[in-house]
Amino acid sequence: MKRKKRVIILGATGSIGTTALKALRPYKDQFEIVALSAHSQITPLIKEATYYQCTTVAVTSQSLEMEQESQFLPSTQFYYHKSGLLEMIRSIDADIVLNAISGAEGLEPTIVAIESGKDIALSNKESVVMGGDFLFEMARKHNVSLIPVDSEHSTLYALINGFGKEQVHSLVLTASGGPFRDASIEEMEQVTVEMALNHPTWSMGPKITVDSSTLANKGLEVIEASFLFGFDADDIEVVIHPQSVVHSLIRLHNGALYAQLSPPDMALPIVSALAQQEISIRDVVRPLDFSDLNLSFSLPDTYRFPLLALAYECVRKKGGYPIVYNAANEVAVEAFFQKRISFLSISDIVKHTLEHGWSQKASSLEEILAIDQRSREVASTCIQKRGKS
Amino acid sequence: MKRKKRVIILGATGSIGTTALKALRPYKDQFEIVALSAHSQITPLIKEATYYQCTTVAVTSQSLEMEQESQFLPSTQFYYHKSGLLEMIRSIDADIVLNAISGAEGLEPTIVAIESGKDIALSNKESVVMGGDFLFEMARKHNVSLIPVDSEHSTLYALINGFGKEQVHSLVLTASGGPFRDASIEEMEQVTVEMALNHPTWSMGPKITVDSSTLANKGLEVIEASFLFGFDADDIEVVIHPQSVVHSLIRLHNGALYAQLSPPDMALPIVSALAQQEISIRDVVRPLDFSDLNLSFSLPDTYRFPLLALAYECVRKKGGYPIVYNAANEVAVEAFFQKRISFLSISDIVKHTLEHGWSQKASSLEEILAIDQRSREVASTCIQKRGKS
Repeated sequence: MKRKKRVIILGATGSIGTTALKALRPYKDQFEIVALSAHSQITPLIKEATYYQCTTVAVTSQSLEMEQESQFLPSTQFYYHKSGLLEMIRSIDADIVLNAISGAEGLEPTIVAIESGKDIALSNKESVVMGGDFLFEMARKHNVSLIPVDSEHSTLYALINGFGKEQVHSLVLTASGGPFRDASIEEMEQVTVEMALNHPTWSMGPKITVDSSTLANKGLEVIEASFLFGFDADDIEVVIHPQSVVHSLIRLHNGALYAQLSPPDMALPIVSALAQQEISIRDVVRPLDFSDLNLSFSLPDTYRFPLLALAYECVRKKGGYPIVYNAANEVAVEAFFQKRISFLSISDIVKHTLEHGWSQKASSLEEILAIDQRSREVASTCIQKRGKS
Repeated sequence: MKRKKRVIILGATGSIGTTALKALRPYKDQFEIVALSAHSQITPLIKEATYYQCTTVAVTSQSLEMEQESQFLPSTQFYYHKSGLLEMIRSIDADIVLNAISGAEGLEPTIVAIESGKDIALSNKESVVMGGDFLFEMARKHNVSLIPVDSEHSTLYALINGFGKEQVHSLVLTASGGPFRDASIEEMEQVTVEMALNHPTWSMGPKITVDSSTLANKGLEVIEASFLFGFDADDIEVVIHPQSVVHSLIRLHNGALYAQLSPPDMALPIVSALAQQEISIRDVVRPLDFSDLNLSFSLPDTYRFPLLALAYECVRKKGGYPIVYNAANEVAVEAFFQKRISFLSISDIVKHTLEHGWSQKASSLEEILAIDQRSREVASTCIQKRGKS
């Protein structure tokens, strides 16, 4: 009998983790879930660990009481806090790690997974945006594959592999455009947290949903695509496509474009990344129905969505800019959630933070985290000043 | 210096031949046009032969007067009539033959090209529809590649090569739907030759334009796809897509679809087929503009377009049916051009001709031509009877 593919899932109770665990159910004979991590949602963690007979779990927010521990399978091994999470990744034998942790917190787990020689199905795009060249050099050194899980990058990964990079002229990332795609700037001034959390096509976590509504998510994806596939800013296009059926395209040198289409469902990129060529997967998404299908495309408006233009600037300037873009945006979105700043101020905060010079390139985890920390302080100060004015 | 790729172009003055010769101009250093054939259009043949310094030509309709011959380059070698054409294909050294002859007349040139070990860029879909398994067995025996030039099959060929046939669940052929896509059956009763020749997206020869308006062209393509790629009728879908930007798709077993997109321009599939991986081609079509792009899809109506359903029946029944489908349709379209039958009668003629039994499979050129001939007689008799009633 063929050995099962051993999988660690980080961020198991978030949107991607939950989708992954549901999508993997038909493949219990092919995959073994050897470890799960969650931040604070214990009840779903118990449920999934029990279903998958998984006896290694990490919880990063707190240590569990004995009573809670007893609800897991007997002989379960527990790891606590961030240090425990990293220890778990290091010590548990696995073929691939699905990193579905949200935000900058996902970077260190990615680095530890690389150091311990495990392939990574990477949903945490911040790992790529912050880690940049440093991360890919590490991955090469440790002979580890970084497989993107975003629907866009998963599509580009499959298309570039299918046609060969030498044939590819440029990348076209599709964006739903979010709920304010057609809003006027006056309407956007009035956007509340509740309005920003109402995404038209994708059901995702709150941070990424707001990032979709500001196009910061697409900005992060442009940076991610640049590092992942080695394309310059001028060779990465963004196209608004409200139906989220075309998940990105490549333009070949001969002028033809190739695209992937499917109903919007993260199960496909997740299971594809975990299965690779080794495991045959079938009917992960329902068949696309052509009986009355309309797909529309337009170009993004960087006047109303300046975070997209700022991301291109970061790809061009390189250095510490991608790290700062991500950090300042995280701080600003958090302030928006706390109703300390308006929706349109999110991009102002990022813009002002980027205006401090960040040309120094980070060449270690410490340097990355230092830039991340300093830019968060700049962004926070900027938010405080606005509060006072 | 790398040897140029030597190309014979058959049907050089038709729609595909003309497009090919125009599209190849920037690649004069990569391709050598070693021979050209035309049926009866001498003036454009002289022009192209001179431009490409080509000194071997075939004319199938007639022998030229000495005065006409003298307008070609000095020392030009002339081949006349069908026998001359076949002799030219056999005797001229070439790497690849672009067969852009229209209709059943294209079959024998394809077979002679295979016998003489030349790869074939196949625009003549009748070669595949009529030749079927016999043709592909011959191609295997002579180690010859048959590369489709239809935009749909060129797309499927590239996608299946890119992803590997084992990953492909089914094929999705797109169809513009032609000028009567949204016409009522009452309106279709009144269709004239002029109306049928007015195609909304593609500029093509008259026979194929009418075939596009009846969906017989798509029917032929379903049969062609079945033979070319080895898929059953149930695994070939047809989808109406009026904008002709998506040139076909594959569905993978995992549920994802992959598509090729480009502005409708036959230059891309033609030059791609001739270049293959050996010659790098750039910007053969203008870049697709996403600034205001709408793509719509729906399912075909086989009640108004019975020729599509009949083609599926021929794929299922195999034997001589694909040959008969093509022959009866050629005869019926010719009668429509001559205003002997109405637009809607085209499918009636094909249907009645198919109703005679044709289950015997052809296993030689002679048997193929015999079935072709007999079915043309049945179709003609059917048309005469209608004229009398």
